[in-house]
Amino acid sequence: MKPVPDEVVLRQLHWRYATKKFDPTRKIAAEDWRSLEQALVRSPSSFGLQPWKFFVVTDPDLKATLKTASWNQSQITDASHLVVFAIKKNLGAADVDRYLARIAEVRSVPLESLDGFKKMLLGSLSRPVEEVNAWATRQLYIALGFFLSAAAMLGIDACPMEGFQPEQYDAILGLTEMGYGATVLATAGYRADDDPYVKLPKVRFKPEDVVVHLNG
Amino acid sequence: MKPVPDEVVLRQLHWRYATKKFDPTRKIAAEDWRSLEQALVRSPSSFGLQPWKFFVVTDPDLKATLKTASWNQSQITDASHLVVFAIKKNLGAADVDRYLARIAEVRSVPLESLDGFKKMLLGSLSRPVEEVNAWATRQLYIALGFFLSAAAMLGIDACPMEGFQPEQYDAILGLTEMGYGATVLATAGYRADDDPYVKLPKVRFKPEDVVVHLNG
Repeated sequence: MKPVPDEVVLRQLHWRYATKKFDPTRKIAAEDWRSLEQALVRSPSSFGLQPWKFFVVTDPDLKATLKTASWNQSQITDASHLVVFAIKKNLGAADVDRYLARIAEVRSVPLESLDGFKKMLLGSLSRPVEEVNAWATRQLYIALGFFLSAAAMLGIDACPMEGFQPEQYDAILGLTEMGYGATVLATAGYRADDDPYVKLPKVRFKPEDVVVHLNG
Repeated sequence: MKPVPDEVVLRQLHWRYATKKFDPTRKIAAEDWRSLEQALVRSPSSFGLQPWKFFVVTDPDLKATLKTASWNQSQITDASHLVVFAIKKNLGAADVDRYLARIAEVRSVPLESLDGFKKMLLGSLSRPVEEVNAWATRQLYIALGFFLSAAAMLGIDACPMEGFQPEQYDAILGLTEMGYGATVLATAGYRADDDPYVKLPKVRFKPEDVVVHLNG
C-alpha cells in the first residue's frame, strides 16, 4: 500500500491553484503552520547545502508595507502567512564550514572525515559570484515546490509570487545586512469563496505536449 | 479532516532522500509512473507559461550513453526512469500564442479576451534572452520539487541530479534542434537495500536557523 494513494495526490495537485483572493478572516493554525515550516526545512538542495533562509511575515503592518513593494497585490495582506524565500548571497568557505559542522554533529562523524567533500564543495563554489547566486536561487525554487506541494496535501491554499521588488524587500526586512536576498514569495491561507479564479479550469498543456518518451 | 494527515506528509518528506544506489531489478509500474507524469504536468509556473518539456528515458542503451555524460553516476542506468527537465529556450511570441490558444481552448473564452494578458506576457519576455532562459530554468526547479514531493508521497525513491553535462545531453537527445535545453535531472525507482546513504541521518540545519519570524 502506498503512503498516500495516487488519487489523493493527484486530486490535491489539481485542487491547488495560485490563489488570487484569500479570505482575510481565516488564519492558518499554529500546528498546521509548523508542518509547512517542516516542509521548507526538509527541502532538498544541491549537495544538501541549503543556501537559504525563509522569512515568515504575519504582522499586519509589516505586510502592508511589503504590499507596496509587491505591486499592491492583495494576497500579501489578505493571506494568513507570507514567506519570503531568500538566498544566502555569495556563498563561500564560511557557509561550507557551517554546513560541514552540522553534518559532523548530526551524523556523529569527525570533521576531518569530510575533507574530500569539503574540497568538492569549495571547488563547486569557486565560480563567478553571479553564477553562485543564480545557482542558489534555483535551489530556492525546489523549496517553493515543496512548500506548495505540502500545502496542497494539507488542504491549505497558497500562491507563489514573483511580482515584487526584491531590493525593496531586502531593504524593508533588513536582509542585505544579514547577507540574504529575496528571490521569490509564497502567500498561504485559505481561498475566498468569491475568488473568481476558483471556478476557472486549470490550464495545462496536454500531457503528450510536455512529456516526451525517448528511445535509443 | 485534512486530505493527507500532517504526520504522513512529514514522515514521507523525511523518508525521501537523494537515492545514491537504486535496485536495478525494480521498475516503476506504468500506472505509478503515470501519476508522477501527472505531477509534472500539473506543476505551477510563472504566469502558467510552462516553459518546459520533460524527456523520459527508460531505454537501457540510451541510459548507458547518457551515463557517460553524467560523470558515470550509477543512478542513470540503475534507476527505473530518468527525467530530463528541459527549458524551452528563448521563449517568445510563438510560445505565448501557443499558451493563449490553450487557455482559450480549456476555458472556452475568445482569444481576443486575452489581449491584455498577452501584452503583459510579451512585455515580461522582452528582456535579454539570457535572463529569459534563467527565469525559465528557475521554473523547472518548481517542477523538480513537485516531482520529488509526489514521489515521496507515493513511496517512490528519486534522486535530483545537477551533475551532468547539459550540452552533451542536448546533443545526444536532439534537444537543441527542438529548441529545448536540459537543465536538471531526476532519476526515480526504488532504493537498493545496501545503499549506504539509507542509514545516514538526514542533515538539515535546525528549523530556527533557517526559518525566521519577522515582526513589524
